[in-house]
Amino acid sequence: MHRLQLTKPDGRQLTLYGREPVDPGLRAPSPFAEPLAGAAHLRWHPLRGEWVTYAAYRQGRTFLPPPEYNPLAVTRDPAHPTEVPAGAWDVAVFDNRFPSLGHGAGAPPELIVPTAPAAGKCEVVVFTQDPQSSLGALALDHIELLLQVWGERTQLLGEREDIQFVLPFENRGAEVGVTLHHPHGQIYAYPVVPPVPARMQEVAAAHHAAKGMGPLQQLIEAERASGGERVIYQGSHAIAFVPVCARYPYEVWVAPIDPVPGFAALNPAQRADLARALKTVLLKYDGLWQRPLPYLMAWYQAPTDGASHPEAHLHAQFYPPYRTRDRLKYLAGTELAAGFFAMDALPEEKARELQQVEVRLA
Amino acid sequence: MHRLQLTKPDGRQLTLYGREPVDPGLRAPSPFAEPLAGAAHLRWHPLRGEWVTYAAYRQGRTFLPPPEYNPLAVTRDPAHPTEVPAGAWDVAVFDNRFPSLGHGAGAPPELIVPTAPAAGKCEVVVFTQDPQSSLGALALDHIELLLQVWGERTQLLGEREDIQFVLPFENRGAEVGVTLHHPHGQIYAYPVVPPVPARMQEVAAAHHAAKGMGPLQQLIEAERASGGERVIYQGSHAIAFVPVCARYPYEVWVAPIDPVPGFAALNPAQRADLARALKTVLLKYDGLWQRPLPYLMAWYQAPTDGASHPEAHLHAQFYPPYRTRDRLKYLAGTELAAGFFAMDALPEEKARELQQVEVRLA
Repeated sequence: MHRLQLTKPDGRQLTLYGREPVDPGLRAPSPFAEPLAGAAHLRWHPLRGEWVTYAAYRQGRTFLPPPEYNPLAVTRDPAHPTEVPAGAWDVAVFDNRFPSLGHGAGAPPELIVPTAPAAGKCEVVVFTQDPQSSLGALALDHIELLLQVWGERTQLLGEREDIQFVLPFENRGAEVGVTLHHPHGQIYAYPVVPPVPARMQEVAAAHHAAKGMGPLQQLIEAERASGGERVIYQGSHAIAFVPVCARYPYEVWVAPIDPVPGFAALNPAQRADLARALKTVLLKYDGLWQRPLPYLMAWYQAPTDGASHPEAHLHAQFYPPYRTRDRLKYLAGTELAAGFFAMDALPEEKARELQQVEVRLA
Repeated sequence: MHRLQLTKPDGRQLTLYGREPVDPGLRAPSPFAEPLAGAAHLRWHPLRGEWVTYAAYRQGRTFLPPPEYNPLAVTRDPAHPTEVPAGAWDVAVFDNRFPSLGHGAGAPPELIVPTAPAAGKCEVVVFTQDPQSSLGALALDHIELLLQVWGERTQLLGEREDIQFVLPFENRGAEVGVTLHHPHGQIYAYPVVPPVPARMQEVAAAHHAAKGMGPLQQLIEAERASGGERVIYQGSHAIAFVPVCARYPYEVWVAPIDPVPGFAALNPAQRADLARALKTVLLKYDGLWQRPLPYLMAWYQAPTDGASHPEAHLHAQFYPPYRTRDRLKYLAGTELAAGFFAMDALPEEKARELQQVEVRLA
């Protein structure tokens, strides 16, 4: 993996990654000249026992580009700079201009609940220079590079004192609120372990203490031992499957078979097979109805809180918002208010649909 | 409160409630003649440590009514029965024909995770006979009746051994997936305390033990003491406000000022004022942009697990899906995968917008 680290005119960082060396003469463009003013802050939610972040400056974005303007495309005209330069690179990572976390160090307001500065960091990850491509369409070695990039970002961010958890994710499709179709994801680096990973870590630690292995390792073993009814991909080192406890109709998990705490701990063979598993799932998703399937993809890793996490097991959870070709699954009363998911579809049926989609990896 | 309890031809229960006596000669119609076959089941999610319910028969609904058919309207033509009879009643409650919980007692499938029968119950609550009305448009004594109905249902359901938590809620609007616009809500009666109320109860109990009051009581006292910057309604016994820790831009909470564990414990003065608070919020919502505002409304009460819950404090949380007049707030990576909410809007600004909407309670 090759990299070039740059600083944008407005102070934000940009790192260009390549399978081949990156030209050290490249400069970092920015659509913005001035540093962002204002600061996000956290407020304590006393009923749920969790933090909420407020970044009011996100509302007042004065930057209104024309519809054809793509800030994630390479800069062609210096008079209209984008977020990334032209030149030979494969993956770009830069600081989000409108971060929910991590901008500014101003004192938070004094309120009737505890408040705190919104420490942490929000990064944008451009998956490719090609605005028409998609994560699943990338070459396997390009996807492997991305897995390495996620590992490096997690390590760099996780080393910071103010960062306890690093979450790489992709929101894809208008149905999940994305209007910018250039293939990209985000990384949120949180000042706390957020509620969902905190719960998962607690559950996994108890499981590991009782059974000597984490719950995902046990589930993968059981899935394989039971004949793989829900398996979408199985290689020597990685697996993808519709979880028996899916909360979304086309939910899929992708993981290394052996427990690995995060991207940075993958060995080359695991990384290569994980790239194959990931690409397989993405191609099956888009092949299902012969159109790009929207989804939320989130990668869970061990917290970066300084503790040892033998219970952690790197994996992705995909949540597509469709329950059939033309019907969305809405999260409503029971899901959002109770956190109790109700499913119309059986995971075994949805796995069969995905199994039947044929894909070619290379 | 007057009531008439009936049984539908397919075995489901229907209760008609009225401010005035309900004609004892009314019969319960049903669009369905045969009892529902099949059974829902629960599967354990070993990574999140929670149950998920699967009701595959909901997919195969063979009942495809014409677009103008409204199953919640009173039956006019016996050849096309709906869910409720014509006659004098104000609120109707009946068993959901396609329940996510509580149908059948068949053995759950054996799988690679623990499974269980989907005990519990799902009820539909028809707020009024008028298909063109809305909850907020109802007369105050009609809303008071509904609060009583929610109390009675909670008591009846909560007394059952297999029910630990009762959640009355309303999903309103196409934006949250509702295609049936007749004013109605639902009641989910769960066989466990679901994840969100369980977390809230745990947080509230710890707070109550440390401070001698629940967190909502303290928040309400602090909100009132701080000048009510976020208050939308304040009466002698009830209050409505944008919470200082709102996770949705137009989130509002409605509660009795003194802690009350559930609807059934409200005294008449509290109930009357809570109806005024609720109606005020609903009219302000619809007045904001002069159109019906979609929302999820959920009412939190004490668990019905047999334990005493001095920390419990009845209240509604409203989650409208809009962040501005024409922009939805999508739940994506950070909210769904991390459970960490990111807000662009400050609660104080949104409270000001709602405060400026004038309403007449009548």
